[in-house]
Amino acid sequence: MQHILHNIAKPTALVDEAKLSKNITRMFLKAHQNGIVFRPHFKSHQSLQIADWFRKLGIRTITVSNLDMAEYFANNGWNNITVAIPVNVRDADHINNLASFVKLNLVVSNLEAISMLEQKLNENIGLFIKVDAGYGRTGVPIEDHDKLKELKLVADQAKLINFKGFLLHSGESYDCKNEEEILAIHENARKKVEELKKVFPNSFISIGDTPTCSVADDFSWVNEMRPGNFVFYDLMQFYIGSCELSEISLIMACPIIAKHADRKEVIIHGGAVHFSKESIQHEKYGTCYGEAVSMNGNSWNSDIIEDVYLSKLSQEHGTLKVSDEYFASHEVGDLVYIIPVHSCLCINLMKRIMTTVGHPIETLALNYN
Amino acid sequence: MQHILHNIAKPTALVDEAKLSKNITRMFLKAHQNGIVFRPHFKSHQSLQIADWFRKLGIRTITVSNLDMAEYFANNGWNNITVAIPVNVRDADHINNLASFVKLNLVVSNLEAISMLEQKLNENIGLFIKVDAGYGRTGVPIEDHDKLKELKLVADQAKLINFKGFLLHSGESYDCKNEEEILAIHENARKKVEELKKVFPNSFISIGDTPTCSVADDFSWVNEMRPGNFVFYDLMQFYIGSCELSEISLIMACPIIAKHADRKEVIIHGGAVHFSKESIQHEKYGTCYGEAVSMNGNSWNSDIIEDVYLSKLSQEHGTLKVSDEYFASHEVGDLVYIIPVHSCLCINLMKRIMTTVGHPIETLALNYN
Repeated sequence: MQHILHNIAKPTALVDEAKLSKNITRMFLKAHQNGIVFRPHFKSHQSLQIADWFRKLGIRTITVSNLDMAEYFANNGWNNITVAIPVNVRDADHINNLASFVKLNLVVSNLEAISMLEQKLNENIGLFIKVDAGYGRTGVPIEDHDKLKELKLVADQAKLINFKGFLLHSGESYDCKNEEEILAIHENARKKVEELKKVFPNSFISIGDTPTCSVADDFSWVNEMRPGNFVFYDLMQFYIGSCELSEISLIMACPIIAKHADRKEVIIHGGAVHFSKESIQHEKYGTCYGEAVSMNGNSWNSDIIEDVYLSKLSQEHGTLKVSDEYFASHEVGDLVYIIPVHSCLCINLMKRIMTTVGHPIETLALNYN
Repeated sequence: MQHILHNIAKPTALVDEAKLSKNITRMFLKAHQNGIVFRPHFKSHQSLQIADWFRKLGIRTITVSNLDMAEYFANNGWNNITVAIPVNVRDADHINNLASFVKLNLVVSNLEAISMLEQKLNENIGLFIKVDAGYGRTGVPIEDHDKLKELKLVADQAKLINFKGFLLHSGESYDCKNEEEILAIHENARKKVEELKKVFPNSFISIGDTPTCSVADDFSWVNEMRPGNFVFYDLMQFYIGSCELSEISLIMACPIIAKHADRKEVIIHGGAVHFSKESIQHEKYGTCYGEAVSMNGNSWNSDIIEDVYLSKLSQEHGTLKVSDEYFASHEVGDLVYIIPVHSCLCINLMKRIMTTVGHPIETLALNYN
């Protein structure tokens, strides 16, 4: 490990393979024990190597967040893919192309999208209707049974559309502060889905967000889960109550390029183009872009170091506010280790990712054409 | 233009070539008329094509924000490059490699970095000492003449280091709200530089931020300017007071994937992986990730459309709060046109960029190895 860290010159994302693997196995077992389909969201890692760890567990069904990502995984042996963003009516050509070599599931929330598919599809696709149980981003309100019947009818009548069921994403769980709040959202969704099933008996139900999938145990009312972020978790998920600090499997290693004793600040190479500008409002620190940990053998100590946090990010620099002790024990050229606020956005930006034992991890960002 | 827009299916950055070219020429002339070196910061566009427009004006000196970017431009015919981030002492190998085929200028703010260079350089480099005239990010406080003398002495004694001068970045201008505030920062820097020159007569002074370079006219006390963002400008620069709306040369075109009449919201394909999560606090709207404009011929109308703004970004989706009129006149599948908050971070993420007349623009993001 020392040797590996020694060779890190640039901002580098470090993945703890053991923690990552444990996260994947735990969620896989939860789905398995509930007898539901596990269709992990690959937008969180966008990596073929991490995808392989799912494959080893027998997982063949995945979720992605756009058609480019679907194509990337489809070109690399993944052929049962749900694209979990409402169909963009301008994407007909891309959809037909993908559907010609992949079992493709799409998501719609309005008549325009279904009509487009009805008119332009050359290939079979599976279709989910997006329902909104309280998040308020996209989807037909789950109580609007008339609208849902209307959409389902059009879908049922279209020759190349195979209506699969209803898909929901309780994204409001990202505003939670503890497990109780997360479970309340899960319970709210359950009740609304039970109502839905009275109108559409035996419907296939797919749910998605990492907080409820991480915290809840009862998935008897769903048929599929699509969490993504759980592979890494991050600072945001920790404060939401989705995970323990010991479950976070991704940190950033960044070199110190300057120290400022008067301001108790350490400046790192590591900015908005590495961490993203996702922030949390920390109870003690205010706006916070990451918190620090210390390395330990082939991993890091789970505990967050007190009074050390990323307070500011420019394009390439990060400003780390630090404690006296941290300041005294860290020199220019040392690496700092930061839990990012949002691992998905961080991985989407990072060009250098490796495991703590030095295996490089490639992502779509490095393979874009 | 209609044909080009018709073919846009995914989130796409649109560059108005005429506005961009005008921005470049204006800044070039300002530097020229002041008799100072123009060394534009290429981190803002990271594009060989846009770089070529600078080349046509005779510009051969550039600034970048990291060594990878230096390498990218060096591999494509740019061989006089300042890397405007304090030297990372872990980067010796990369520095030596680059300096072997490029006139490379580096920036330091501490003894550790100069000592590393002194010990490990195999090639000649130019060196700037970073001074801080009030921003409070990196650099030796400009009043700390003893520290500056100490650093300069070490630099002067090192055989392969050619001391070039002092480099400053008045990044505090990004907190300004109007031209007066920007000019006050410029004046503050001037006064402090005059003091510095009493101790280090005839020193070469390089300044950088887009707000002061855009607004100020008197550069008699500097020898070089390194603005970057001015090629595009953006919403943040407009509210800072750096530019007119008519000077912004970059917008995002994103398809509408859903409409929600009850919330007066339009959901677009276009999220944090396209816009970045940079936001401004808008006087009327609060947190705002972008504002809308309407297209007009081969460009767009400069005026911002009232009561239409990006209020929320997930990874792939954006939530556009809209006026009644905008809601009524935009359908699912239509494109919306958004001025991003921070063009540099946006371009760093975007995989699809083209001019309003359909010429594709490639950036480092598409050419990463």
